[in-house]
Amino acid sequence: MALKELAERECFQLLASRVVGRVAVVVDGEVRVFPVNYLIDGDDIVFRTGDGTKLDAARSGALVTFEVDASDPLYHTGWSVMVTGPLEAVTEPSELHRMHGLPVRAWGGDGRHIVRMPIARVAGRRIERAANGT
Amino acid sequence: MALKELAERECFQLLASRVVGRVAVVVDGEVRVFPVNYLIDGDDIVFRTGDGTKLDAARSGALVTFEVDASDPLYHTGWSVMVTGPLEAVTEPSELHRMHGLPVRAWGGDGRHIVRMPIARVAGRRIERAANGT
Repeated sequence: MALKELAERECFQLLASRVVGRVAVVVDGEVRVFPVNYLIDGDDIVFRTGDGTKLDAARSGALVTFEVDASDPLYHTGWSVMVTGPLEAVTEPSELHRMHGLPVRAWGGDGRHIVRMPIARVAGRRIERAANGT
Repeated sequence: MALKELAERECFQLLASRVVGRVAVVVDGEVRVFPVNYLIDGDDIVFRTGDGTKLDAARSGALVTFEVDASDPLYHTGWSVMVTGPLEAVTEPSELHRMHGLPVRAWGGDGRHIVRMPIARVAGRRIERAANGT
């Protein structure tokens, strides 16, 4: 059993294949991890959020990490994609108007704000079974 | 729709109900997030890892964040539990012997090392539907 690094194109395909990911934000030196419902809009990850940690991070343009994975414990297969980039609160009226029409809603809470994360860097790994089945 | 904070007891029950979580580690000021197959052993989260970021974090006793969640996008239900604590490489021979017998294997890679994370702090949230269905 080994981990194979994925090509960027594969990472984008896998990102587009899921609807729930996690945003990791550093707050006072500690990492906080939040599930989000997301979609891919061009080269951005887009999600909704209420007031709080994620919105604060977006307003300050913090560099955050977004992660999405899938696992099948029975067959021991899986993949994981990690994106690094700055979080941005969307405030430009025409962009906001367009993005309010996107089919994404908050994972929980009110989700009145729209946040985007340009996919500055992406990396991914897939579990590969060795030829001998280990 | 709202997010309800969970009691510690519920957090422990939910932690024990899943097998794949994510460990978030800060490396050179950036967060890295890795899926792991885990189990709860007493008051510890236990998982296997090979050489690399997670083992380095464990050897230095770094404070890390562990997250596990479940979502049903169709019914818009879900929960998320976040644990904060120090990562520790297990090196004591009798403990290692006992833990090698635990039914947990690495998410990917070789997983020859066993790492534990005392559940120092835990917090969780559940999506709650408001009475009016929003």
